[in-house]
Amino acid sequence: MLILRDVPALRAWRAAASSPVGFVPTMGALHAGHVSLAEAARVDCATVIASLFVNPRQFGPNEDFERYPRDEAGDLAKLEAAGVDVVFVPTLEVMYPEGHATTVHVDGVTDRLEGAHRPGHFDGVTTIVTKLFNLVHPDRAYFGQKDAQQLATIRKMVLDLDMPIAVVACPTIRDADGLALSSRNVYLSEDERRQALSLSRGLTRAREAFEDGLTDAPTLRDLIRQTVEAQPLANIDYVSVADAATLEELEGPIEAPALCSLAVRFGGTRLIDNVVLTP
Amino acid sequence: MLILRDVPALRAWRAAASSPVGFVPTMGALHAGHVSLAEAARVDCATVIASLFVNPRQFGPNEDFERYPRDEAGDLAKLEAAGVDVVFVPTLEVMYPEGHATTVHVDGVTDRLEGAHRPGHFDGVTTIVTKLFNLVHPDRAYFGQKDAQQLATIRKMVLDLDMPIAVVACPTIRDADGLALSSRNVYLSEDERRQALSLSRGLTRAREAFEDGLTDAPTLRDLIRQTVEAQPLANIDYVSVADAATLEELEGPIEAPALCSLAVRFGGTRLIDNVVLTP
Repeated sequence: MLILRDVPALRAWRAAASSPVGFVPTMGALHAGHVSLAEAARVDCATVIASLFVNPRQFGPNEDFERYPRDEAGDLAKLEAAGVDVVFVPTLEVMYPEGHATTVHVDGVTDRLEGAHRPGHFDGVTTIVTKLFNLVHPDRAYFGQKDAQQLATIRKMVLDLDMPIAVVACPTIRDADGLALSSRNVYLSEDERRQALSLSRGLTRAREAFEDGLTDAPTLRDLIRQTVEAQPLANIDYVSVADAATLEELEGPIEAPALCSLAVRFGGTRLIDNVVLTP
Repeated sequence: MLILRDVPALRAWRAAASSPVGFVPTMGALHAGHVSLAEAARVDCATVIASLFVNPRQFGPNEDFERYPRDEAGDLAKLEAAGVDVVFVPTLEVMYPEGHATTVHVDGVTDRLEGAHRPGHFDGVTTIVTKLFNLVHPDRAYFGQKDAQQLATIRKMVLDLDMPIAVVACPTIRDADGLALSSRNVYLSEDERRQALSLSRGLTRAREAFEDGLTDAPTLRDLIRQTVEAQPLANIDYVSVADAATLEELEGPIEAPALCSLAVRFGGTRLIDNVVLTP
């Protein structure tokens, strides 16, 4: 597995890479969810490249950029085991040289949910992903359904800016007890982790109720909210049942694919999860 | 010469085009300045593609989008004569389908001069150029020095977003009397056109004074301003002597390349011109 750390090396590699090229952008601290993206790319593509870069622009000033888990050696071993060909590991100076001043902004789909609670977060995501796309020039790029709004935002950016890239969504990977895998799960205490199961439990209840014929969005939203609120350590940022394409909150029956999503804080740790309900 | 009007046709053409591909984006209403860009691309590149698209997003609400001159047949004849291989002529619906919501923004270099007088103008430019770059995927893109701030903005965007494209600047082309060619010159009355020669005359005076040893930026700025102000039909938007890289206004001696630029309105017609002074 080749490890590249600067732009000239990456460009030289890309000029000779076999198509299609599949790309898995990550912030490192890899878990089985990231590995599943690399494995999906490996099935589809002649060449698979991943990136490891903790992007400061997508963290707010009071968020966890400094303490975000970093384990380059462990990450590289996991990517190699997943059959990745190349890993791009740029420094901060490579990605944001002095004077960097350009931003990619997607309106609308970024206004709500994570966007409302994390100002500037999606500008950070779309800008770094644009840069990585321009550097890697992939044919296909792989993202997890776990970050559903990020996925919707990147799809919209790719469409609006005519990027010649297929965006591939991969299912959320969960622990045996249902907790969605996240690099931030390592922050949780034992008590917090047990109570954090309420996220997936609430979503599962909503999905089961929907499958039993309950389609009223506010009722489903309440069902999820009550499941989480029963946990004393849980602080809810939002619980949403929204149109899966526009992310506009639904107030009546679900008649098109709906994204049920939530963000909940346990102490200083913020978790998100979601499920899509399709009528 | 091939004429393409939609994205699938363009992508199919691009997949088979010979490299390097040179790209000349235009808003049509072509004059000898545009033709010089196409000719420069023809010398450098195996394949030359131009585009014709009057981009509404780079016009302000009170600007001349509606009356901007359009002459597709004449433009195509000029491009063919310049040896262009392919012309992309998209409709508004192709470039901005319903719900388009993504913007590319460059900070800093867009704040002053044209940016200060035309709010949103450069966001319109950088967004459409990003889209066209993603569609055409050129190796080299050609822009006129006439739109000096546009050129600086696109260079900064290409650098900041790691676009794998060489930006090539081509000299301003002038009529025999010195007037910089512009698609907007057709709007000028006979009197206005005669007085509009004060733009190039003021810049030439500044250049000659600089070559004679006058390096004080405010004095050079006054010299240009006074030349234009002597014309009764001239309304000055700005006269600037600025650092050529940052476009920050200079208040002392010129010690690095300086951009002398100005924007002047004659009735409803707004003209710009510039010259670079290199110590």
